[in-house]
Amino acid sequence: MDIGIQFLPFPPNPNLLSGRVIVVIDILRATSVMVHAMSRGASEIIPLATVEEAFRMAKAFPREFVILGGERKNRKIPGFDLGNSPKEYVAARVKGKKLILTTTNGTRAFHAVSSGKEILVGSFLNIGAIAQRCLELNKNIFIFPSGDEGNFSLEDTLCGGMLIDLITQKEKKQIILSDASSSAQILYQRFKDNLLQAFHLSHHGKELINRGFEDDLVYCAQIDMTGIVPEFKAGVIRVK
Amino acid sequence: MDIGIQFLPFPPNPNLLSGRVIVVIDILRATSVMVHAMSRGASEIIPLATVEEAFRMAKAFPREFVILGGERKNRKIPGFDLGNSPKEYVAARVKGKKLILTTTNGTRAFHAVSSGKEILVGSFLNIGAIAQRCLELNKNIFIFPSGDEGNFSLEDTLCGGMLIDLITQKEKKQIILSDASSSAQILYQRFKDNLLQAFHLSHHGKELINRGFEDDLVYCAQIDMTGIVPEFKAGVIRVK
Repeated sequence: MDIGIQFLPFPPNPNLLSGRVIVVIDILRATSVMVHAMSRGASEIIPLATVEEAFRMAKAFPREFVILGGERKNRKIPGFDLGNSPKEYVAARVKGKKLILTTTNGTRAFHAVSSGKEILVGSFLNIGAIAQRCLELNKNIFIFPSGDEGNFSLEDTLCGGMLIDLITQKEKKQIILSDASSSAQILYQRFKDNLLQAFHLSHHGKELINRGFEDDLVYCAQIDMTGIVPEFKAGVIRVK
Repeated sequence: MDIGIQFLPFPPNPNLLSGRVIVVIDILRATSVMVHAMSRGASEIIPLATVEEAFRMAKAFPREFVILGGERKNRKIPGFDLGNSPKEYVAARVKGKKLILTTTNGTRAFHAVSSGKEILVGSFLNIGAIAQRCLELNKNIFIFPSGDEGNFSLEDTLCGGMLIDLITQKEKKQIILSDASSSAQILYQRFKDNLLQAFHLSHHGKELINRGFEDDLVYCAQIDMTGIVPEFKAGVIRVK
């Protein structure tokens, strides 16, 4: 089994995606929001790149079945129902609803890897379940951190590193790591007893703290809050 | 002072280069060869992207003034004088000569950042001198690891991380690190007592060992063998 991770969020070479399980990660906060919303009963999530697409998509369904969520510059978008804090996505708001989500980094990332066959939504909230699913699928793995406005993101990479760490601990077969995957694992090991310390060091973490979202860092650092593995297919995220 | 490092070796946004000191790093082995050859008296180095350009350039000068050096697939190029092992570049071969060099990753990297104004040639062999020069120049810094055929390179990143570590220890002013620069520093700290261990872990290091170049890993891991700071300007590398 071979595990790769791409440190910068440009669209990968399609050859890298074919035949691999892909794990998309945007810890602060898109994939944490997705995993949380689905664990609270959202029926499906449609990740879209732009605000315009989100409004247009919402009009295609009866308003009461749809939740519009996401952010620009970390804040809730005018006219949207919810922002990009996982804890807003409580069952009373999202249960049985279709969530239309647009964020700066995370929702775009799904479209960058959309030619892949199995695309999983990863976060610390469901990291154990993601590792387990990867072991069951028994294929090569490609981890895609969504990054921070095109730049390398420490918190996304740490989550990728934790996934690598969990898989290498459990997999019996030889695992081949690239320089990037080894480095992600080493970075995770450096912070594994204090993920929040890394979130405070990260550019995006600092930005969220400055804008009053420090609680979200604590929330997104929770490990294995749920056992669900949302999957992106044909433009929609669902739990099998 | 702000220090950035780009983890993948595509041509950077020119805005990132303007007003910054740029440090190009290709530990295994191009910048190690360059620093070594200049420390042994080579008068200048012309880094070129292709073998054809190298042959053409060599014809422009009397043959006895020129050394043709470099590699493809880690091996010496047919018709060239020297390969890509630093220790081949002894004074008896290179003193007073113009070195025309073409390698897979390193020589291309200089052309990717050529719009920059001050472009330094970094390696473990001259890392202390590079740090000192950066402190004297007192500008923002952009570190450009040459990578491994387009991929992230552990050994180049460690050298970037050591440069960051040295500068942050000595600089009195506040230093702003990106997520990538913090990560490079952490990776360096993990291996600082045993750089060779990291070279053995790296994809390119393993490849060199498989092809019989293990000695080069030991050679390129030497710290501060020389105090020279070669600089790339208008297509040529010289020591001021």
